[in-house]
Amino acid sequence: MQSGGSTPVINRSLFGVVQAAIEDGGLGEIYGASHGLEGLLVGRLIDLRDQGEARWSRIARTPGAALGSTRRKLTTDDVPAVLRLLDEKRIGYLFIIGGNDSAETGHTLYSEAAAAGMPLTVIHVPKTIDNDLALTDHSPGYGSAARFVALATMGAGRDAEGMGASSPITVIEVMGRDAGWLAASAALGKRDETDAPHVICLPEVPVNEDRFLGLVEEAYGRYGSAVAVVAENARGAAGPLGGDEEPWYVDDFGHPYYEGAGRHLAALAGRRLSVRVRYERPGTIQRSMAACVSTTDAREAGRAGQAAVRYALEGATDAMVTLVRGDGAKYACSTGLAPLEQVAGQVKRMPDEYLDPSRYAVTQPFLDYARPLIGPPLPWFGRLR
Amino acid sequence: MQSGGSTPVINRSLFGVVQAAIEDGGLGEIYGASHGLEGLLVGRLIDLRDQGEARWSRIARTPGAALGSTRRKLTTDDVPAVLRLLDEKRIGYLFIIGGNDSAETGHTLYSEAAAAGMPLTVIHVPKTIDNDLALTDHSPGYGSAARFVALATMGAGRDAEGMGASSPITVIEVMGRDAGWLAASAALGKRDETDAPHVICLPEVPVNEDRFLGLVEEAYGRYGSAVAVVAENARGAAGPLGGDEEPWYVDDFGHPYYEGAGRHLAALAGRRLSVRVRYERPGTIQRSMAACVSTTDAREAGRAGQAAVRYALEGATDAMVTLVRGDGAKYACSTGLAPLEQVAGQVKRMPDEYLDPSRYAVTQPFLDYARPLIGPPLPWFGRLR
Repeated sequence: MQSGGSTPVINRSLFGVVQAAIEDGGLGEIYGASHGLEGLLVGRLIDLRDQGEARWSRIARTPGAALGSTRRKLTTDDVPAVLRLLDEKRIGYLFIIGGNDSAETGHTLYSEAAAAGMPLTVIHVPKTIDNDLALTDHSPGYGSAARFVALATMGAGRDAEGMGASSPITVIEVMGRDAGWLAASAALGKRDETDAPHVICLPEVPVNEDRFLGLVEEAYGRYGSAVAVVAENARGAAGPLGGDEEPWYVDDFGHPYYEGAGRHLAALAGRRLSVRVRYERPGTIQRSMAACVSTTDAREAGRAGQAAVRYALEGATDAMVTLVRGDGAKYACSTGLAPLEQVAGQVKRMPDEYLDPSRYAVTQPFLDYARPLIGPPLPWFGRLR
Repeated sequence: MQSGGSTPVINRSLFGVVQAAIEDGGLGEIYGASHGLEGLLVGRLIDLRDQGEARWSRIARTPGAALGSTRRKLTTDDVPAVLRLLDEKRIGYLFIIGGNDSAETGHTLYSEAAAAGMPLTVIHVPKTIDNDLALTDHSPGYGSAARFVALATMGAGRDAEGMGASSPITVIEVMGRDAGWLAASAALGKRDETDAPHVICLPEVPVNEDRFLGLVEEAYGRYGSAVAVVAENARGAAGPLGGDEEPWYVDDFGHPYYEGAGRHLAALAGRRLSVRVRYERPGTIQRSMAACVSTTDAREAGRAGQAAVRYALEGATDAMVTLVRGDGAKYACSTGLAPLEQVAGQVKRMPDEYLDPSRYAVTQPFLDYARPLIGPPLPWFGRLR
């Protein structure tokens, strides 16, 4: 099953699981749950053995969850129906491609099945553009979304720089519910101080509006244009930016989403500096743009899916596949395992060493961490003398 | 000079002009005006002969106006200062890379110089992601922005489809001030009726809110998700969508910009259908994304710049370079010339034959027109059986 927000490589992991399971041959039927938990609850299953190679080669390159995803949270009431289905269909292995909420679902199903005397192998395949899963060096999905954000920031930066006085300031609002990995990736294409971004607002750092405006004004004064990248869930010290607004959406897990931290800051900057401030919100485009898929990310997403089957056949359960970075100077990545219980509901935030002392920029160690994940080198833009 | 909104290939045209002028050798000094008219007014000029090959090869691939652009409108008061500068620097040839507003600037400068007894060669190089310039088959800049919009719609469509009930509807707001060419390009990646987009709102067609909601609801009912692509300046029969709001910005040319036709329609759909509706606004990202540059567009932008110099040397003036499509089945494009007076201030809207009878979709003739402009074939996404 696929669960939670989608990524441009979530189907590479699905293909990895199915490919490895078909190759092994001993696993029997291979079903996909339509829309995750929702499909499990009503028995809506898709036969994954019989799709054909041509179809898989397209699906592996398709963004968005091919099985259908869900944000539904598993409740105690749901458990009997799911266990009944697993029993009826004689399902012994459950592979969940998802984030930290789905890890919780997986751990609960494993525990409940065990308590009911039904041994169930549950292997979680990490997936999140937020990169906030614990115990893995990084998560499939992040590298591609980060590549989009880096390229979008580079482009929007040159647009603002070129437009000059007509529209010198741009605020780009990016995803990242609790952690700033994606917002931080905006800096991956920055080659000198003139380049965007000039200010980054992370969920980890409460935004001080005066400080934010001061930094934007300083960059505008110095370079003639300024770009701020703001995580959609960035907040002030006293709560959501923009005063006491209600969250515009609260998901099943109780996570509140506030519309437009970026929108609020853009309006504020426009009023303070009396210039046209643009507000860009790529939204789901940042997590589904085929042209920005990181080849590294796509490869690792596939390998994580294949590894999940291998670990399952070796007897692992109640565990998540992790990506493990090699120690050498050249980037290398292998897989490992982590107990689901230590992943479920946990959030890996940006460590202090990745945050610039100003708290509105990132450090070289962060860039060194993230650069190998986004695929081939970013383009090198020029400026006239 | 470069003028108006930027594109991902506006610097290819600049490079084309400079390259051709350097090769000819007889033109003497080659200056670039910093931020267009603003630079001409204060004599801020950049020497373009001495930038070096390595720098040009980067700049040609850099989005945003490398010279700096402007949205300033030429006034009668400005004319003497500009003519004085042209005289002082002995500038006989003026190349303007811009849209229909800049064409007006060019024509006025030509006429005023002639009246003052200063023969001035003015050649306009077409540039606009809106594709609304008259007398040219299409405009450099459009193909790349259209490629972005097509890919963004394909991705966001698969995202919404995969998310299902959690967030089934997405409204993408795209640029295009007076004409729907860019919004229409959202359909270029649509291979069957399930694919996004399901509704397109063009500036040419007054939006009927009930009809819009009906179409979104119908697609949602039939496919489980729906994507609407809305031009930022789409309006209702009685004016801007969202009632009697003030435009959030009015440029020097008096063009009003209303914030969020898409935002308004997204909120409306959320209320009517009681589901989470996403609102995505790629903004300047759509006109500056290096990963979505159309190779065809980039090549033609360069050729238009080179042709401008050739036509100037042949004695043309007060004219715009046009792109002329060959008659054959295989796409071919050459250049021509059109009088600036017939381009200035004109807007080429989508012809009726490109609009589906519903007025909220496009026809095969439009797809046949636009497909060759966006470069290599778009990816082919798959679906599970």
